[in-house]
Amino acid sequence: MTIQTAIAEVSTVLGERLSRSKGDLDHHGGSETYFAHTPPDAVAYPESTEEVQKILRACAAHGCPVIPWGTGTSLEGHALAFRGGISLDLSRMNRVLRVDAEDMVCRVQPGVTREALNTELRATGLFFPIDPGANASLGGMAATRASGTTAVRYGTMRDNVLGLEVVLADGRAIRTGTAARKSSAGYDMTALFVGSEGTLGVMTELTLRLQGQPEAISSAICAFDSVSDAVATVIAAIQMGLPMARIELVDAATARGFNLYSGAGLAEAPHLLLEFHGSETGVAEEARRFGELAQDLGAKGFDWAEKTEDRSRLWKMRHEATYAIKALRPGCDILVTDICVPISRLAEAIDETTADIAASPLEGPILGHVGDGNFHALLLIEPGNTAELDAAKALSDRMVERALGLGGTATGEHGVGVGKLGFMEREHGAAWGVMGEIKRALDPQNILNPGKLVALN
Amino acid sequence: MTIQTAIAEVSTVLGERLSRSKGDLDHHGGSETYFAHTPPDAVAYPESTEEVQKILRACAAHGCPVIPWGTGTSLEGHALAFRGGISLDLSRMNRVLRVDAEDMVCRVQPGVTREALNTELRATGLFFPIDPGANASLGGMAATRASGTTAVRYGTMRDNVLGLEVVLADGRAIRTGTAARKSSAGYDMTALFVGSEGTLGVMTELTLRLQGQPEAISSAICAFDSVSDAVATVIAAIQMGLPMARIELVDAATARGFNLYSGAGLAEAPHLLLEFHGSETGVAEEARRFGELAQDLGAKGFDWAEKTEDRSRLWKMRHEATYAIKALRPGCDILVTDICVPISRLAEAIDETTADIAASPLEGPILGHVGDGNFHALLLIEPGNTAELDAAKALSDRMVERALGLGGTATGEHGVGVGKLGFMEREHGAAWGVMGEIKRALDPQNILNPGKLVALN
Repeated sequence: MTIQTAIAEVSTVLGERLSRSKGDLDHHGGSETYFAHTPPDAVAYPESTEEVQKILRACAAHGCPVIPWGTGTSLEGHALAFRGGISLDLSRMNRVLRVDAEDMVCRVQPGVTREALNTELRATGLFFPIDPGANASLGGMAATRASGTTAVRYGTMRDNVLGLEVVLADGRAIRTGTAARKSSAGYDMTALFVGSEGTLGVMTELTLRLQGQPEAISSAICAFDSVSDAVATVIAAIQMGLPMARIELVDAATARGFNLYSGAGLAEAPHLLLEFHGSETGVAEEARRFGELAQDLGAKGFDWAEKTEDRSRLWKMRHEATYAIKALRPGCDILVTDICVPISRLAEAIDETTADIAASPLEGPILGHVGDGNFHALLLIEPGNTAELDAAKALSDRMVERALGLGGTATGEHGVGVGKLGFMEREHGAAWGVMGEIKRALDPQNILNPGKLVALN
Repeated sequence: MTIQTAIAEVSTVLGERLSRSKGDLDHHGGSETYFAHTPPDAVAYPESTEEVQKILRACAAHGCPVIPWGTGTSLEGHALAFRGGISLDLSRMNRVLRVDAEDMVCRVQPGVTREALNTELRATGLFFPIDPGANASLGGMAATRASGTTAVRYGTMRDNVLGLEVVLADGRAIRTGTAARKSSAGYDMTALFVGSEGTLGVMTELTLRLQGQPEAISSAICAFDSVSDAVATVIAAIQMGLPMARIELVDAATARGFNLYSGAGLAEAPHLLLEFHGSETGVAEEARRFGELAQDLGAKGFDWAEKTEDRSRLWKMRHEATYAIKALRPGCDILVTDICVPISRLAEAIDETTADIAASPLEGPILGHVGDGNFHALLLIEPGNTAELDAAKALSDRMVERALGLGGTATGEHGVGVGKLGFMEREHGAAWGVMGEIKRALDPQNILNPGKLVALN
């Protein structure tokens, strides 16, 4: 069997770091959402670029699928081994290789998590801003073009990965980008691999842009009577040019979840959570202007968190939203959707989605990174209840159709994986075929994360 | 002859808008720098995407080169017809198709110039920030991944093109990107075409991100004893997190050119030109902090331009730098180089370049977008003097080698064209080969701007 031959060959390279233990296979066959358990045939734990090259050469020689694995926090089944093969677990490639404080960049291995990087950066006065919630690996975040709460200010992984080392399907290692801030020297190979979900190559090193820790930070939470009022406030703030570092919407159901899960004591109403980064006077002025604007548009019960511990509590609550929402239906499974629309269509998209969920048998709180036009519904499902799972999938599909109809995208930050594959042709038209042509040029055997993002065979 | 057959076929599509007049061929065979005059066999003036598709189908059928043309302001020979064929002049596709003020985006045809767009936007309170100096077409700016004075704040064309319509070598039209602010739905096809210099497809429509006109703007110019002091000021300001909208360095020779050309009355010393955008209080505070910092590091003769007309005069002077520098040697030709290095290596790169030029027989003022680590030398050459041209090319080559040695790039914003082609393998290593594989997949006959950016045949 070709996969078995490849595994035998990889095992001569890695020894005991090529695992076929039940625990390893089980762990790498799971995901954080509703997908069926799909274990790989083996799990490889490389410790260097050279080892990744050897693994890919062996897999290319025998046509064995290779599925890169970061921390397994993906939400669209990206890291599942639907066609068997080797799960390439990069967690042992977890060194911060270099921090250049003067250039505000760092080089890391793909298995470094965002929290580990920020812990390492603490003494430098710098931080890496992208925050998808989960403590994902930076390689995984780059592979899915992740973003999260701070993208409204600092951009997504697209904007914060300056360069990569990538091992291609045939085992060649290439470097993309430079340490300069910009370049016009040829095709943007970094951008091609960021968001390619392991289908074009395996990232073995990342050069990341860092930010200076702001001199002052001010956070707040405030309530609104309706989601529409909250969204109108966000649009007005963006148009005024207020440089929000975070601007998050949670709906009334999510607020109820926060109260259940962490005793937040919030009104059961839609809320905005926001943050400004800057100088003392700049942040104070921006906070004042936002407060005036929001109150004009119906905001109530403004609660400003000036102290570090109050801010930490606020964002810890937001990061735990998934658990808080699960507390609304103890023991439930969850289907998390992710769409992004032009800001001008956001209120419409959220209103229609809310009505659609209300008309369904399911509970499905909504929350999102509304400064980007990006929001999620978290649909609560009884484990094993296929009728509920089908209803959730149908709701999610209608959300995506709505997003595409409004000029948006099937996924703002979670990626395609297998969960959104069915919408790619509708979203991209003939351009999806061109993605396939690029995939074929770089991975003619389709061994890299086959069956995800593009449909080849 | 295959080119002639293609031209005959295109002429049935365009009628008189397929020109073979001497004036048209001459104009499209020229460039703004030292490259030899290289006219195409014909010039096509399409007026729609459908016409571009028909032209490309005819050219694909007969293997005829197609060289997209915007305004001809490229500096690396991008639009020259070294292999003959059809110059595809997009200047008649010059409509602003839509402005979405609420989403702060617009859709334009590729022949719209940046000045024309900003004139059209004036009443909306929005503007398009990218400013490479020349009044280039937006299609040309996207094709070369242009940037300029404001990239330090607003990014480059990479960051400001949200989507494209592109006609491929075989005549298929595809759309990339959406009107949403971000997406994780598949390969970043927009980024692949931005900076591809017409070698992968012809852009027929662009969706651009717009910015709100700042409430307050403050500009200044100040002098330093040395380039090193000026660069140290820039690095310190970036590390303090001061959000400069522009931060430009000109050396003493350029200041002398400004005095000669426009009677600027500057000290013959290196200068920084800078600008802040924001709220009244924000800009005032940032200007104050920059002023204190710069004076600590040796800045003299601060001249703040608060009034619109004073600011316009300052940036008009900067934009006319090429003419001002030419005034140092009336009647000269010019070779303009463009490199970009990590900020931490910028002083070193400029110092060594200055010394290298001083040791040469040529005069070559230096100026640049130092907030990005990007600078240019403008080498003055007697027309027809091959010894001087060779000396200028050798200086430019050493600048690029220096940039690559310091971890930078052969071009920060002008692009590869033919001028920087010889450095691509050194800069990218095996990744340059991968660029060739992508080119081959999308344009197997190599009809799109052949001989530029990648080397295929």
